Amino acid sequence: MPSPDPLLDAVTFDDDGLVPAIVQDAETDQVLMMAYMTEATLRDTLERGRMVYWSRSRQEKWVKGQTSGHAQSVEEVRIDCDGDTLLFKVEQEGGACHTGYRSCFYRRGEDGHMVPDGTKVFDPDDIYSTT
Amino acid sequence: MPSPDPLLDAVTFDDDGLVPAIVQDAETDQVLMMAYMTEATLRDTLERGRMVYWSRSRQEKWVKGQTSGHAQSVEEVRIDCDGDTLLFKVEQEGGACHTGYRSCFYRRGEDGHMVPDGTKVFDPDDIYSTT
Repeated sequence: MPSPDPLLDAVTFDDDGLVPAIVQDAETDQVLMMAYMTEATLRDTLERGRMVYWSRSRQEKWVKGQTSGHAQSVEEVRIDCDGDTLLFKVEQEGGACHTGYRSCFYRRGEDGHMVPDGTKVFDPDDIYSTT
Repeated sequence: MPSPDPLLDAVTFDDDGLVPAIVQDAETDQVLMMAYMTEATLRDTLERGRMVYWSRSRQEKWVKGQTSGHAQSVEEVRIDCDGDTLLFKVEQEGGACHTGYRSCFYRRGEDGHMVPDGTKVFDPDDIYSTT
């Protein structure tokens, strides 16, 4: 059954039924992360107005911020020319990265080396403790 | 043989030997496009200082701007926490999108519709003419 939503109709999902979603801070335009969505989690994202992904490693729905509190509210959604990549602008609570950095892209190449270059906004031990 | 380059070592390529590269305008932080690289085209990109991709549709190396003149010079490269996505900041000649828009993400979702919201910087008929 075709979706009534023109955005969902415009998306080309890959062979695994996934589409990559680039996530940008709506305020600063910093790229925070990239993750994947199924048609169901994309629909969920659009309905809730907060980012819901598909975890490829855990093979399950992943409501961003459910464990960490670091949720992402959707401010804007865009789709690229061939419909196989999404771009979201979000309001990010805390940090996007499980390592505690604001952005997952906290390592920068410099003269053939990788140097840390990011802002740490929380201590992951405080959040993901298993005890 | 392990690569002598720490960036190349840090990348996790997918089952097809590809890594997605998000491309951001170094000046404005606008996200321009996303495309894929093999280890060889990533190496080529780092050596030349200009973006070289792997075209999944044509299954061939794709030196951005070779046909259109709309080349991308590398200003910065970053890698995400789990090493499976790259982020490049580039100096973009003309437009990144084959449709003539500055960015491939020229369609924005609004009230359940897709609306064009981008800057057209060239006429694709002038560039990709087959005659």
